[in-house]
Amino acid sequence: MKTIILIGANGKMGKAALTGLSKHHVLTAGRSAPHYDYQVDITNEESLRKLFKAVGHFDAVVNTVGVCEYASFTEMTETQWMHTVLSKMMGQINIVRIGQEYIADNGSFSLITGILNIKPIPYAIADATTSGAIDTFVKCVALEMPRGIRINSINPTVLEEAWEVYGEMMPGFQPVPGALVGKAFERSVDGFITGQVLYVDA
Amino acid sequence: MKTIILIGANGKMGKAALTGLSKHHVLTAGRSAPHYDYQVDITNEESLRKLFKAVGHFDAVVNTVGVCEYASFTEMTETQWMHTVLSKMMGQINIVRIGQEYIADNGSFSLITGILNIKPIPYAIADATTSGAIDTFVKCVALEMPRGIRINSINPTVLEEAWEVYGEMMPGFQPVPGALVGKAFERSVDGFITGQVLYVDA
Repeated sequence: MKTIILIGANGKMGKAALTGLSKHHVLTAGRSAPHYDYQVDITNEESLRKLFKAVGHFDAVVNTVGVCEYASFTEMTETQWMHTVLSKMMGQINIVRIGQEYIADNGSFSLITGILNIKPIPYAIADATTSGAIDTFVKCVALEMPRGIRINSINPTVLEEAWEVYGEMMPGFQPVPGALVGKAFERSVDGFITGQVLYVDA
Repeated sequence: MKTIILIGANGKMGKAALTGLSKHHVLTAGRSAPHYDYQVDITNEESLRKLFKAVGHFDAVVNTVGVCEYASFTEMTETQWMHTVLSKMMGQINIVRIGQEYIADNGSFSLITGILNIKPIPYAIADATTSGAIDTFVKCVALEMPRGIRINSINPTVLEEAWEVYGEMMPGFQPVPGALVGKAFERSVDGFITGQVLYVDA
């Protein structure tokens, strides 16, 4: 049994991830403290450092959060771009950059991206661009992780559980059950793969 | 003959690009005003707006600049990451975001990335990650560019002209002549392709 920090456990993607982590001791973390075991803001280095120190020993970090702004490219402002870049992209890089100092030997990081960098749709340019950044980051940084630490990203299509919200924006997409996405997180955490983008698509 | 704004003309990559633009009227822009026709800081929205207004009519923007910081991942600071992200990634997105308001119908943007997102080497994680972001951005944003505007990225390996500086960091890489990279810029500017990553590798 591993000790896993799951960031964003209460979101739909967090719940999907949780279905793949049932063998383990899962500690939850997120922005709103009362709903989680620990409070954390991934855009803030000190907040991450505080989380990892408070937890002590942990074998894996699974992240399912990252804020994105949605707008057509010609309308998207610098503020909207930076909000997305600082959360979904740099927030996840922060998790690994700070987390690698604290995680156990042979630990693992599992980050979240999303299929829109492979299957673009309107309004999602910042989401797609930052997913491309994180998928690339994972492939390259795996080669220099110390102490046997692994890293992968999970790149799912839309969840069945979120279809009611996003379906209209995504014509011709086939949603997948959260439990299938949970399998990808399980493969990342319990396997020996590293530097991989685990696509979950139908 | 097209009017082209070439950002960073005096660098090695700028000189390489210039070899492919000889049929056109090229206006140069860069950070240090005396060396260029126009001064511009791509990290600053107002500076870009001032450039495009000053030039007036233009058919293409070719960018060859983007500052990257180099360090091993475990040593790279948040400041080094953000310096790279704000220049090579967001600076180039700024060029397109602001430039699309001013560029002529059926104009084109040619951005610069680099092969290290495909062939990783030590110390280059921020370079690779932001190249991955821009290559993804180009593929996706092409689908929503207005008025027939095209966009591509040129993703070259190391230049023969830069081998003396970078060769030691890049064992087993085969440098290519700047003139071959110039061909890729020419193909982007004078062709009808869009949403493509033009790899120049040997």
